[in-house]
Amino acid sequence: MAVNGVYKPDMNRVPTGEFFLPSRRTNGFGVQAEDTKICVIMVGLPARGKSLIAQKVVRYLHWLSIKAKIFNVGQYRRTATPNPTAEFFDTSNSEGEKLRMAAAEAAVSDMCRYFANGEGLIAILDATNSTKARRRWVQERCRSEGIETLYVESKCDEESTIMSNILEVKTTSPDYVGQDPEVAAQDFRNRIRNYEKVYQTIDEDESDMTYVKLIDVGQRVIINQIQDYLQSRVVYYLMNLHIRPRSIWLSRHGESKYNLEGKIGGDADISDRGELYAKALPGLVKKSVGDNRKLTVWTSTLKRTIQTARFLEFEKLEWKALDELDSGVCDGLTYAEIEERYPDDFKQRDEDKYNYRYLGGESYRDVVIRLEPIIMELERSENILIVTHQAILRCIYAYFMNVPQERSPWMEVPLHTLIKLTPKAYSTQEERLKADIPAVSTFREKGSSAKHQ
Amino acid sequence: MAVNGVYKPDMNRVPTGEFFLPSRRTNGFGVQAEDTKICVIMVGLPARGKSLIAQKVVRYLHWLSIKAKIFNVGQYRRTATPNPTAEFFDTSNSEGEKLRMAAAEAAVSDMCRYFANGEGLIAILDATNSTKARRRWVQERCRSEGIETLYVESKCDEESTIMSNILEVKTTSPDYVGQDPEVAAQDFRNRIRNYEKVYQTIDEDESDMTYVKLIDVGQRVIINQIQDYLQSRVVYYLMNLHIRPRSIWLSRHGESKYNLEGKIGGDADISDRGELYAKALPGLVKKSVGDNRKLTVWTSTLKRTIQTARFLEFEKLEWKALDELDSGVCDGLTYAEIEERYPDDFKQRDEDKYNYRYLGGESYRDVVIRLEPIIMELERSENILIVTHQAILRCIYAYFMNVPQERSPWMEVPLHTLIKLTPKAYSTQEERLKADIPAVSTFREKGSSAKHQ
Repeated sequence: MAVNGVYKPDMNRVPTGEFFLPSRRTNGFGVQAEDTKICVIMVGLPARGKSLIAQKVVRYLHWLSIKAKIFNVGQYRRTATPNPTAEFFDTSNSEGEKLRMAAAEAAVSDMCRYFANGEGLIAILDATNSTKARRRWVQERCRSEGIETLYVESKCDEESTIMSNILEVKTTSPDYVGQDPEVAAQDFRNRIRNYEKVYQTIDEDESDMTYVKLIDVGQRVIINQIQDYLQSRVVYYLMNLHIRPRSIWLSRHGESKYNLEGKIGGDADISDRGELYAKALPGLVKKSVGDNRKLTVWTSTLKRTIQTARFLEFEKLEWKALDELDSGVCDGLTYAEIEERYPDDFKQRDEDKYNYRYLGGESYRDVVIRLEPIIMELERSENILIVTHQAILRCIYAYFMNVPQERSPWMEVPLHTLIKLTPKAYSTQEERLKADIPAVSTFREKGSSAKHQ
Repeated sequence: MAVNGVYKPDMNRVPTGEFFLPSRRTNGFGVQAEDTKICVIMVGLPARGKSLIAQKVVRYLHWLSIKAKIFNVGQYRRTATPNPTAEFFDTSNSEGEKLRMAAAEAAVSDMCRYFANGEGLIAILDATNSTKARRRWVQERCRSEGIETLYVESKCDEESTIMSNILEVKTTSPDYVGQDPEVAAQDFRNRIRNYEKVYQTIDEDESDMTYVKLIDVGQRVIINQIQDYLQSRVVYYLMNLHIRPRSIWLSRHGESKYNLEGKIGGDADISDRGELYAKALPGLVKKSVGDNRKLTVWTSTLKRTIQTARFLEFEKLEWKALDELDSGVCDGLTYAEIEERYPDDFKQRDEDKYNYRYLGGESYRDVVIRLEPIIMELERSENILIVTHQAILRCIYAYFMNVPQERSPWMEVPLHTLIKLTPKAYSTQEERLKADIPAVSTFREKGSSAKHQ
């Protein structure tokens, strides 16, 4: 128990009568789990990308092993009012007002329970929270429960962004299921107008609150009173987001000489078939990317990725952070040799591959920590092609596709295949292009024998 | 040569008639050296900490191996006017105005030469730049030379901060050398008043510019139109700065069993003498920190730092980023064994210790990259005691004390010694407290034999 930052020793844990103070492990980000309760409160008119931002933040936090959950007030409201018209959102409609307040109450109560039960460190309250009075009310509720607040306002006056959001909503929102899209769009515009009547942007009156104002998605950012490390990480992530359309291409290196021998790690050259893939890659990329599109190629610092990328006529950058998972003492061994020399480790790795750290090497969890700047830079970037390694590709893929930790280290990512990921509003689209060049399979199923084929 | 993001192959480098495209190495931060020319332009009234911020940014960048230089307009002005009175800064004084403009011209011209000669990636123009007209003029000069601009305004109305800056200036500024401090302070206040008459804060009119406004040093931050990765890193650094007084304490772990045997790396327990140091540490810390001060203890995840810190009654956090430099294949060997088994490597390491990467392990450069989040978190924090390892401590120390790369890996950091660093306006104060407990020396001088004493 931390009292004023000083640990009171738990006397049951004192083995020799000395002061034995438990060290708390961080998750590599200095997060102090037991102290942290942050409510991220979205603010903004409808169609300003609030839900999109909320979902991206949760995906990012989950990838970093930080538990977070969205509480969407609209979903609570829909249990009472499944298909409201714009009039429901008119502030002069006292019945609508009452029902909307009840929905906010229900969402906030569930959120408080979520924190009280220790279910997560961060909650996101996804609603318009468009008046100062509403924000004060949330603020007071959180303060009384010892929950920190971070307001995130998305303010956007660019007509094109709003229109594309309206388009998205009229076709996907549960509020308009089964309705004529044009009628839905018009109703949604009217709903926005009703919110505009009462909307108050966060301003000087609220300078005691911790907040971020995102103006035109990353064009301009105002940050006020950031308190702690985790808040500052979330804010840095928000600063780096953009919504310009783009894709990310992922490829493993061409088959390497180590792949042929079934060895892991090392810094081997690519094989003859790997060389064929390197030569085929520019054509594959052209087919997927099209002409005249700007693209930057990232590789690791290991020979097999640099050799694989060398025929691509694009700007290239090598990143040490993209080097393969370090297999420590097992570097250069085959799975059969590992199973023979380190049978317990081999079993342990199968049991919890995400957390298993090779002796003198890394775990998937370690890799995620060193990939974090890569993800941040990917969020900032436009079209990027990454030529990297199996474990690294799995971690990057897991971020974009929201793959849970227990599954990500076991995903099959074949050699000689180009993966195209295109972030969309609420998901990421995937396409795979196989080069017609054979390669060994480096995939080993959980619990399988270590035989190399 | 990059043309529209596509590399034109250098035909002299094509070995087999194929397209052989050189990959560009990043420095681990994705910095694209040949493209980057950023002028950071300070904005703000006198006594708002502009020079302090400029110096911190340069120190941070140098630590990351990014070349940067400050161009201080005041220094250029002093060659013509060494000891001006406040009237010199009155805008109605046309002679003063002319001389101040000439100083700005000279500083900007030198800066353009610095970029043209490829001497660095970042320049900081340290001056008040307090009018829109002046800022536009700098903007145009930079644009015509292909230099990106990032305006950093420090806006501060807290009387206490301004007063402590005035106090600093009247006693240290070359403008007031040999003058009565009270007269100097009064003159400096008048100078500020003259600037206040014309000062224009950055506002909506300048929304096409890339800028950061720091309001009350980190309390509130406004970020506009950040363009690239390096700018976003600088901005994130600026966001995390604070000026509350604090100290940082550094200690290596107590002597370990590996230290006794002259072995490097590993995860050994501390020795009997190391245990004595662990027991002495709380007293040493109390003597240096005093009573009733809040302090957090950070350790690595290795046993020797956790054991050393275990009697300290403060909140503790373990960081993997604080683990010792990974010596790869040499882990667990003595220097004599390394010299015997890897004679070439041993010599190479002596020649360029900062860049030498152990086979399968790390270099000092690699360590700096993984310590970057630690430095960022240290900037955000107040009193921290770090119990860590020789190479890690050298890198952290080098950041605070501005030690050049070629020297930092060779610094002597003895065991059983507590180092206290206190950041002051323009430097960091150091104190060392030795525990009177003997330990082996783990220091090996450059070019010395590898014998263990």
